Parts: sequence; C-alpha cells; structure tokens
Amino acid sequence: MAFSFPWTGLVTLAAVIIYGWTGIRVARARARYKIAPPAVTGDPNFERTFRVQANTGEQIVQFLPCLWLFAMSFGDLWAAAIGVVWPIGRILYVVGYSRAAEKRGPGFFLTVLPTLALAIGAIFGIAQRLL
Amino acid sequence: MAFSFPWTGLVTLAAVIIYGWTGIRVARARARYKIAPPAVTGDPNFERTFRVQANTGEQIVQFLPCLWLFAMSFGDLWAAAIGVVWPIGRILYVVGYSRAAEKRGPGFFLTVLPTLALAIGAIFGIAQRLL
Amino acid sequence: MAFSFPWTGLVTLAAVIIYGWTGIRVARARARYKIAPPAVTGDPNFERTFRVQANTGEQIVQFLPCLWLFAMSFGDLWAAAIGVVWPIGRILYVVGYSRAAEKRGPGFFLTVLPTLALAIGAIFGIAQRLL
Repeated sequence: MAFSFPWTGLVTLAAVIIYGWTGIRVARARARYKIAPPAVTGDPNFERTFRVQANTGEQIVQFLPCLWLFAMSFGDLWAAAIGVVWPIGRILYVVGYSRAAEKRGPGFFLTVLPTLALAIGAIFGIAQRLL
Repeated sequence: MAFSFPWTGLVTLAAVIIYGWTGIRVARARARYKIAPPAVTGDPNFERTFRVQANTGEQIVQFLPCLWLFAMSFGDLWAAAIGVVWPIGRILYVVGYSRAAEKRGPGFFLTVLPTLALAIGAIFGIAQRLL
Repeated sequence: MAFSFPWTGLVTLAAVIIYGWTGIRVARARARYKIAPPAVTGDPNFERTFRVQANTGEQIVQFLPCLWLFAMSFGDLWAAAIGVVWPIGRILYVVGYSRAAEKRGPGFFLTVLPTLALAIGAIFGIAQRLL
C-alpha cells in the first residue's frame, strides 16, 4: 500500500509515545503520592506530573494537524525535519517540569516553536496552492 | 505536491489557532490572577479562562476527525463551508464564557452544531460508499 | 470521490461519538450534582464522570493517529478489525468507572491494548516501507 509520509508518520508516533509516557508517569505518581482517582490534587509533585500530561495533550492536538498539513504542502522530509524538534522539546519539558514548575520554559518553547513554524508554513503552502 | 483539501486545511488551521489562543489566554490569566503552576484553581476568573481552553480542546478533538471524514466523502468545499462555522462559534464561546459562565451557551451550540452535521454527513457518506 | 478507508472511518466516528457521549454525561452530572461551571470538583460522583471524559480525551488522541498510520500501512480492514476493540473497551470503561473507580481497569485495558497494537504495527509497517 502506498504510504507517502513515512518520516512524518514516525514523528507522529514519537509524539504519541511521549504523550503516552506522560500518562504512565501520572499513573505511577498516583501510587507514589497516594492520590486515588478521581482526585487530581493533594500533592504538588503529583500535580506537576499531572499538568505535564495535560499540557502535552494540549500541545499534541495543535502539533499533529500542523505537521500533516505542512507535510501535504511541502512533502514528507521537510515536515519531519521540523517536526522532530517537538518530541525532543517535549522530553526536555517533561524532565524540567518534573523537577520544578520554573524549569518548564525551555522544553515548552521547543515544542511550541516547531508547531508555530509548521502552522505558518502550512498557511503559506495552502495559500500558494489556492492562488 | 497534490493537496486536495486546501479549504478544509484552512478551516483546520483556524480551529488550531483559536485553540492555541485559548492557551495563551490561560498563560496571561495565570499572571493576572497570580495562579502559579501547577495550580488550576483559586480565582473564578482564572477558572473560567481555564475551562474555556479545556472545553475547546475537547471540542476540537471531535471536530477535526468529523471535518476530514466529511471532506473525504463530499469534497473539500462542502466540508469547509460547514466547518467554518466552528471557528466562528468558538470565538463567540471564548468571549461569552470569559464574561460569565451563563453566556457560554450560544457559542457552544455553534461549535457543536457543525461537528454534529459533519459527523452525520460522514456516516451517510461512508455508508453510501460501502453499500 | 475516492474514499479508501471506509471501515477505519467508521471506527473513528464510533470513537468520536463515544467521546462526545462522555461529554454529555458530564453536562448531565453537572445538573444532577449541582456543580456549576467552571467548578469541576465537589462531589465524588461528578468527579468520576468528569475523569471518565478527561481520560477518554487522552486516549482518543493517542488512538486515532495510531489507527490511521496502521491503516496506511496495512490497509483499511486490518486497521478497523483491531481498532473496533477501542469503542467496545471504552464503553466498558465508562460503565465501570461510573460505578466505582476500582472498576475502571478492564475497560481501560481494552482501550490501551488496541492503541498499543496499532502503534507497534505502524512502526513495523513504516520501517518496512523505509528499508
């Protein structure tokens, strides 16, 4: 079967796996800090871990559509080359925020940056296609 | 590169940009109402801003798959013509809910409506294709 | 219009409809337990209903990309055959978790399992395509 976007697909899977990992971290933090569901508060360490997952969900929902619209405009390799920054930035974000809320900045910036670049590129690519 | 869904792509980007905007509003509300992460409660104005973003995330996750499945069944222009109601409704929702929780109704309705129409259309389109 | 993935499309719509249903349940629980927006706490029955929706959102964001990347690698029918387990598992999850937090396990497992299988399959499918 024709699969025209293998590298974009791999970046997508990397992002999804990282998001799944933030969910596993929440499950482990529930056990460690004794936060039984449905509670999501009660210990600042748990709450940081929980916010890491929530923010990763917010970001991946913005990232994936931009990644694929960019890929459809400029091809698989360009999309993946920019998109691969997202998983790297997100790992930095998870590690930083887990230590302290103040350390979430650089990783957050590195996940927002590729999404922004892909969104702007996609707008140009589609505009070019329409004109 | 062939890009068969330019208008659907633009509606998608509009929805993602609005969702990103609701996130920027949360960051600003954190500063204004002095709600340091990972906390997400403590001031009703902040909490409304936070819920606006959360609800927009819930809605965009339902909207985008329906939009694209409809586009694949009925073409780019029909999908975009219905889908463009979503970003408009969402802006009304953000503005309304930010003022008072009671004012979130009309904008909410205008984002649920296109998602419902696209979902029903996609079911018919796919059923027609299978039969 | 060519629509090459009708069954994958139907599984996608089933998942989105179930996610929408978890949102309707939250709206009804707000009325029943008198939890006015923007609050999301105050009654354990409401909180469980709210967590059901939140968790379904987290899971659908992981499920849909894996489903479609798998479909692009192995075809429509295989993707749908594995993916159809997700909506079934999610319904069990909603029913179980609504009764008691301890009863969320089996349904949760049955939604994580197809996502994992589709993710692993997609990685192999893409790797095969690249090599």
